[in-house]
Amino acid sequence: TMEALGIEVGMAILNGQKSFTEHPYISGMFKGMEVDMVPCFAVSSAEKIKSSVDRTPYHARYILNNTDPAMRDEMRLMKKFMKGIGTYGAEPHVRGFSGYLCEIITLYYGGFLNALKAVAEWKEGVKLNFGNGEGNFSRVAMIFYDPVDGRRNVASAVHVDTLSRFITAARRYMESPDRRFFFPNKREPFDEKGIRARLDIRGSTLISVSFRRPNVLDDILHSQIWKTESAIEKRLHYYGFDPLRSVHSVTEREVIFVFELATNQLSETYVHEGPVPWVNNADNFLKVWENNPYGAPFILEGRWRVVRKRPFRDAGNMILKEATQLGVGKDMNPNSIIIRDHDETIEHVDKAILTEMLDPRYPWEN
Amino acid sequence: TMEALGIEVGMAILNGQKSFTEHPYISGMFKGMEVDMVPCFAVSSAEKIKSSVDRTPYHARYILNNTDPAMRDEMRLMKKFMKGIGTYGAEPHVRGFSGYLCEIITLYYGGFLNALKAVAEWKEGVKLNFGNGEGNFSRVAMIFYDPVDGRRNVASAVHVDTLSRFITAARRYMESPDRRFFFPNKREPFDEKGIRARLDIRGSTLISVSFRRPNVLDDILHSQIWKTESAIEKRLHYYGFDPLRSVHSVTEREVIFVFELATNQLSETYVHEGPVPWVNNADNFLKVWENNPYGAPFILEGRWRVVRKRPFRDAGNMILKEATQLGVGKDMNPNSIIIRDHDETIEHVDKAILTEMLDPRYPWEN
Repeated sequence: TMEALGIEVGMAILNGQKSFTEHPYISGMFKGMEVDMVPCFAVSSAEKIKSSVDRTPYHARYILNNTDPAMRDEMRLMKKFMKGIGTYGAEPHVRGFSGYLCEIITLYYGGFLNALKAVAEWKEGVKLNFGNGEGNFSRVAMIFYDPVDGRRNVASAVHVDTLSRFITAARRYMESPDRRFFFPNKREPFDEKGIRARLDIRGSTLISVSFRRPNVLDDILHSQIWKTESAIEKRLHYYGFDPLRSVHSVTEREVIFVFELATNQLSETYVHEGPVPWVNNADNFLKVWENNPYGAPFILEGRWRVVRKRPFRDAGNMILKEATQLGVGKDMNPNSIIIRDHDETIEHVDKAILTEMLDPRYPWEN
Repeated sequence: TMEALGIEVGMAILNGQKSFTEHPYISGMFKGMEVDMVPCFAVSSAEKIKSSVDRTPYHARYILNNTDPAMRDEMRLMKKFMKGIGTYGAEPHVRGFSGYLCEIITLYYGGFLNALKAVAEWKEGVKLNFGNGEGNFSRVAMIFYDPVDGRRNVASAVHVDTLSRFITAARRYMESPDRRFFFPNKREPFDEKGIRARLDIRGSTLISVSFRRPNVLDDILHSQIWKTESAIEKRLHYYGFDPLRSVHSVTEREVIFVFELATNQLSETYVHEGPVPWVNNADNFLKVWENNPYGAPFILEGRWRVVRKRPFRDAGNMILKEATQLGVGKDMNPNSIIIRDHDETIEHVDKAILTEMLDPRYPWEN
């Protein structure tokens, strides 16, 4: 098969390591450079691909046929900029701009600086088209129709927050260009004292939720991390804990989510919304709350309501109790959850992500 | 003029007191009964009225022409039921069913019990039509086309909560009829100890906002009361105070609104939402929050946000500071506001409304 053949050739040349995405490929060193050797089908046109990697030769050919060496330097500049501001890469970890996307953005605007000038005026939903593009895509932050396959959106992996960062960086760069956009300084994290001082003035409470790190590919891990973070955050909101911020970090053994709660001391009671009064379910609702110690149900704005005790007043307790219904990523094991309270979180979690949480900075601002 | 003539005749017969709604009229006693004598124009059809009272003779004639004495007794039963459950009257104080509306509902279903059986199946938006009705009405809880003027909604004053109460009462009555629906017992209010005990288990905090009672007609007063209550409640929500319940009471000198807050201890900070990153206003936002002691702005879900100090952590203070921008009824004087805290409210406010707030009961349940 093509797979076996690809692996054999790859191993023969690179003597490297087998990896998987859609299909197996070989990673190794060649003339001192890190190289991935990815087998693909030679198809007669980019619209007839069998695997998404089959499109790659068409992309490479398109760029080579439409650029001169100077333009290719402009593209390299764009990629370095993207790396510097943290938007380079279509993988779930970054949710950003693939190398090919960087190339065609540069090409589209005729160079790096022209592109940045244009990007500074972009907004969500921006749509770029070399003329062959067609159709629409729902729930995407932007569209760039692939010049080699007009029905494909090259920018489908770009998250609105990554797009926002790119636009913001472009605006800042056009105001005052700076080498830090390309070569950002590493940020010095706050020490424990600095972190505690900032938490004190915010009056907030940290809680962290860690899962045993599942043994899956990085891309799969990171899409599950986003899903899990948003699921837990939604649940916190649902139960009245107002998360101010959330961040995550991955260690060799753990995936850790840190939530900063405006307060972890919720009120004793809240108003629970029931059915409208003209459904049969209303009778049921009234029966359930008949002897409610917090008072009888009442109608307000055409709906039964009742004052009830909060089911959870402690966020950590809530997460443990609801662990299996949170809707976390499918390889995240709810039984592996460890909750760490405010102090434990400060001591245990990477200071760099706490620093980022308490005082967010873009790479070019350091 | 008709006005002067009407007043003269009224005074001659009733020797009563002049009152106003759309036009002046005379209230007094006649053969031992309270009587309002209201002058109106004799118009050639109900569609050609000059003042809304000109329709009244048409309503009276319609009922007389379409009922026998037995049906008129059914209508009296309906009105007594409506009075008993607290839904009788189209005035803003009640937001309920006018006498004429009670009559045509009874007529429509052919009697009191048939009507109640039907009402038990009503829902919001119910539309009744003797055949002459036309057109639609937005933002009304129900429609009953006036049999003497098909473009008019007799039920326009019915609030969804009054409709809900009527439907609920009908459902309960059909389950188990009881004389208390017609002759409700007066509720014994909780004493101060009982009120405090219930507040303690709810863990809530009372605050009351009183205005000097404006010298305006009752109907105007009560529409302004609803407007004011909802305006203050909205503002409380906006600033993060979660009102569990609100009630109001009118004394000779004051209009008092009582709000029960789930908590009056808000968190120090919250997340303030800013503009999307691709508008010029975004630069302004970043400048404003440049040196925010609670940390720099950040982008989440395509929007700038920043952790900031709550402008108000005490509800009473907020209401005083925002008094002129609350959007209260136009005759409610913001400068007359008196804020009473938890204990002052318990001592000062009518125990009956606090009882109703802490343990709502319908009249037929007492």
